[in-house]
Amino acid sequence: MNAAEFLEQVRQKQPLVHHLTNWVTIYDCAQVVKSFGASPVMAHATEEAADMASIASALVLNIGTLTTQFVASMKLAAASANRNGIPVVLDVCGAGATAMRDVKCIELLNETRIDIIKGNASEIARIAGESVNTKGVDAGVVEKNLCDLAQHLAASRKCTVVITGAEDIVSDGSRCLAIRNGHEMMSRVVGTGCMAASVIGTFAAVSKGDLVAAAASGLSCYEIAAELAVKRSDGPGTFKQALFDAINALDGAVVLDMQRITECAAITS
Amino acid sequence: MNAAEFLEQVRQKQPLVHHLTNWVTIYDCAQVVKSFGASPVMAHATEEAADMASIASALVLNIGTLTTQFVASMKLAAASANRNGIPVVLDVCGAGATAMRDVKCIELLNETRIDIIKGNASEIARIAGESVNTKGVDAGVVEKNLCDLAQHLAASRKCTVVITGAEDIVSDGSRCLAIRNGHEMMSRVVGTGCMAASVIGTFAAVSKGDLVAAAASGLSCYEIAAELAVKRSDGPGTFKQALFDAINALDGAVVLDMQRITECAAITS
Amino acid sequence: MNAAEFLEQVRQKQPLVHHLTNWVTIYDCAQVVKSFGASPVMAHATEEAADMASIASALVLNIGTLTTQFVASMKLAAASANRNGIPVVLDVCGAGATAMRDVKCIELLNETRIDIIKGNASEIARIAGESVNTKGVDAGVVEKNLCDLAQHLAASRKCTVVITGAEDIVSDGSRCLAIRNGHEMMSRVVGTGCMAASVIGTFAAVSKGDLVAAAASGLSCYEIAAELAVKRSDGPGTFKQALFDAINALDGAVVLDMQRITECAAITS
Repeated sequence: MNAAEFLEQVRQKQPLVHHLTNWVTIYDCAQVVKSFGASPVMAHATEEAADMASIASALVLNIGTLTTQFVASMKLAAASANRNGIPVVLDVCGAGATAMRDVKCIELLNETRIDIIKGNASEIARIAGESVNTKGVDAGVVEKNLCDLAQHLAASRKCTVVITGAEDIVSDGSRCLAIRNGHEMMSRVVGTGCMAASVIGTFAAVSKGDLVAAAASGLSCYEIAAELAVKRSDGPGTFKQALFDAINALDGAVVLDMQRITECAAITS
Repeated sequence: MNAAEFLEQVRQKQPLVHHLTNWVTIYDCAQVVKSFGASPVMAHATEEAADMASIASALVLNIGTLTTQFVASMKLAAASANRNGIPVVLDVCGAGATAMRDVKCIELLNETRIDIIKGNASEIARIAGESVNTKGVDAGVVEKNLCDLAQHLAASRKCTVVITGAEDIVSDGSRCLAIRNGHEMMSRVVGTGCMAASVIGTFAAVSKGDLVAAAASGLSCYEIAAELAVKRSDGPGTFKQALFDAINALDGAVVLDMQRITECAAITS
Repeated sequence: MNAAEFLEQVRQKQPLVHHLTNWVTIYDCAQVVKSFGASPVMAHATEEAADMASIASALVLNIGTLTTQFVASMKLAAASANRNGIPVVLDVCGAGATAMRDVKCIELLNETRIDIIKGNASEIARIAGESVNTKGVDAGVVEKNLCDLAQHLAASRKCTVVITGAEDIVSDGSRCLAIRNGHEMMSRVVGTGCMAASVIGTFAAVSKGDLVAAAASGLSCYEIAAELAVKRSDGPGTFKQALFDAINALDGAVVLDMQRITECAAITS
């Protein structure tokens, strides 16, 4: 795995990444994509969600501030993405917190092809059918091997699963990678999880079919930038701005040197 | 009054603070709550607003970019909060600017139990039935004793009233506190008023019933952080980021030393 | 042309600038207006969009995250602005990317009086009826003289046209100005285009009828601040915060010294 090669691809191809995301972190989702050198767009109207997806190279869905109508637009955008063969990322933000979130995630998973499901440990556990103790959109405690969780969900949904946390897990049901970059400061900033989904979408747009490598590379680059940004900031406010700076300036050689992506041992299920 | 004790409670209990707020400052409302160590969540769909309120420890409503449907969701969330006995803060953002804002505030006040009404001087005067000269969402001039205004509205609505400004006033109709922390720079930053409501909600979540002390403590902590942040910034842009840093790093001993909360003289009405 | 005089007018009169804008950059649109010393307000409900426009000094519309209902509110706000004689700016954000965007722009232009149409080169070309190759909300390549494009659209729509880019063009169909301030870093930050529309609205609010001078002055001040901000920042994150600081501190003498506004040679059409 060479995260720097993916980074270079993103910068060269500058893919258009379409979002139907939440209203809290929508700016940060756009800016993180832009900082990587790609081109973000957000369009949620029923009348244009599919059209915009048809000119994009990836689609990122996030249910953070969902409504029924908004999810209807997500389905139109995802169907368009599916027809056009571009990858679809679903951030199952807040799954487990309310019945509506669970229902709408399952609808999206059943009615469209989601290529990458992304969430924190308790969100992914919930999507996998576990009973979880959530706290809004922040992760609850999950007493389970996360590789196992990711692999089982990926295998049953025939997709790639990303579990974000202090250590990120990416699996397509057979391979499983762990990414150990990042910094605790990320958990003190609203939107770092949502931005991770946008980064995954951006790297998936240049994946040439290897979504596991793309997601792991994107997360590693993003979190290496976070490690660098912590050194140039004094807390969550200045950190987020330094993060955009660091992503914009991220050097391929530094990525190669700092990336901590490892294969997890196989788990027999 | 010991604002540092409330701060410690917030950090220990990390309450979930549910918001139905405006689209301009929604990120800052979330980040200010997070910076204090608590957990923000935003969910406005009719289908889940009540469910999310039922797992939260406080509810913050803000009419900054209201629609009729959005206020309908606010009512569902507030009714749920009322049933569950968690405090509800209403930021009457822009009251007096349009007829719709006045009507919707009164509906919320009449149809649900609002525990804390928060606004600037002209907004609170409007909610109290005065005829005011407003300018969008910025405060107009109010030729009236603000303690008197807060106390009368609090007594008539049987709630706590917070008037924000260079000096903040908090009253439940009998007691009246003045908070003299903060800095003029706050008025140059969009969202400092909305964030104040989120802070009040966060501190109300750990109030053990004393909403006047909680609101005053929250405002004092927030504004002490602002005083510290001004010293580490060059204008409204860097100030807001320094504010999140300062809140995150806020020290209890510093709060105790800097807090300026005083009882106002009784006003016979 | 003296951009510093317009700046001084904005600071003295502190106009209320009403927005119906997109959800991605709404905060930045508000903060840029506030940083200039004016007063932003955002209100999109059908029931109050016209009322809010009636107390404002300028109206800024931006279709970045449009819906049919949102555009309906825009029309009500614009009609109110037209009745009250205040200038209306339309940012044709993403025109050419989807059929819906084109249709809704034309509806707004045909059904209300838009005083200033603002977009990047490909967006303006699309509104002028050209077939363009767009990429979401980022500018595509336009093989055409931009003065000519602006002048023709301005003449046919009887309004002022602003084309933003490395060099900005402002024309009312007879005069044509070029503004050569700004910095490449602006293109790496989401929202710099949307903020430009808000700045144009803010300066139009104090224009006394000369919208070309107002728009050019506003753009020049905004972009001079950007030139100063680049020197105090390390990338797109810290740049945006430094930009708000620089606008807030912008000195009239510095503006006079740095402004690069020139008359374009007349183009016979």
